[in-house]
Amino acid sequence: MSNLSGHEREILSGKNFLFLATLNPDGSPQVSPVWVEAEDDLIVINTSRGRVKERNMARDPRVAVSAYNHDDPYNKIIIRGEVVEMTEEGAREHIDKLSQKYKGTPYPWMKPGDRRIIVKIRKK
Amino acid sequence: MSNLSGHEREILSGKNFLFLATLNPDGSPQVSPVWVEAEDDLIVINTSRGRVKERNMARDPRVAVSAYNHDDPYNKIIIRGEVVEMTEEGAREHIDKLSQKYKGTPYPWMKPGDRRIIVKIRKK
Repeated sequence: MSNLSGHEREILSGKNFLFLATLNPDGSPQVSPVWVEAEDDLIVINTSRGRVKERNMARDPRVAVSAYNHDDPYNKIIIRGEVVEMTEEGAREHIDKLSQKYKGTPYPWMKPGDRRIIVKIRKK
Repeated sequence: MSNLSGHEREILSGKNFLFLATLNPDGSPQVSPVWVEAEDDLIVINTSRGRVKERNMARDPRVAVSAYNHDDPYNKIIIRGEVVEMTEEGAREHIDKLSQKYKGTPYPWMKPGDRRIIVKIRKK
């Protein structure tokens, strides 16, 4: 059941960081902040092949995310989700797009060999 | 092995929200923002009996936390931890102390029957 509310969409569209919780191989939780956008009805982030969160999501699609309005921290969202797609296609362009949103510049931290990945999450 | 770094302590001592990831009964992750302080070498939060995060931590002490400096979001911490104590003792006073830190007033949202709980987390 799965549709993002207007409030969730608003927080995700703002310049707010998303805290993404994933599951480690031993079942313990991991959490870290990421850039985010809402696209159609999905929560979309961008990470790199080989990072803990990427390996975790490839193994187990169950995630949870939370964020607040940076200018009003008590205005927050808490969402359980499921990874429905992980793809390298268009991911270099996509990290630049997210960087433009958050930093106003193309992504400044690309490293040689960095394989970016778009991750799409559906609200459960 | 388990001691908070100066950097972690600094972020936890600032007026920054902590995103706390816990495990649901089905093993999926849950994450939500909380007030926090560092006390001795522990990460200390305050919640209420019966909330999802409280029930989750009582069942499985494995947690993960992350936060950033509100004035410098790229200055962040990511910590795996374990709940080592959950107690109601002193928890009413403690939520007022945290509220003073974050809001500058005693806790304004206490509800009748709200049983506050101090949760102490050790870095793994």
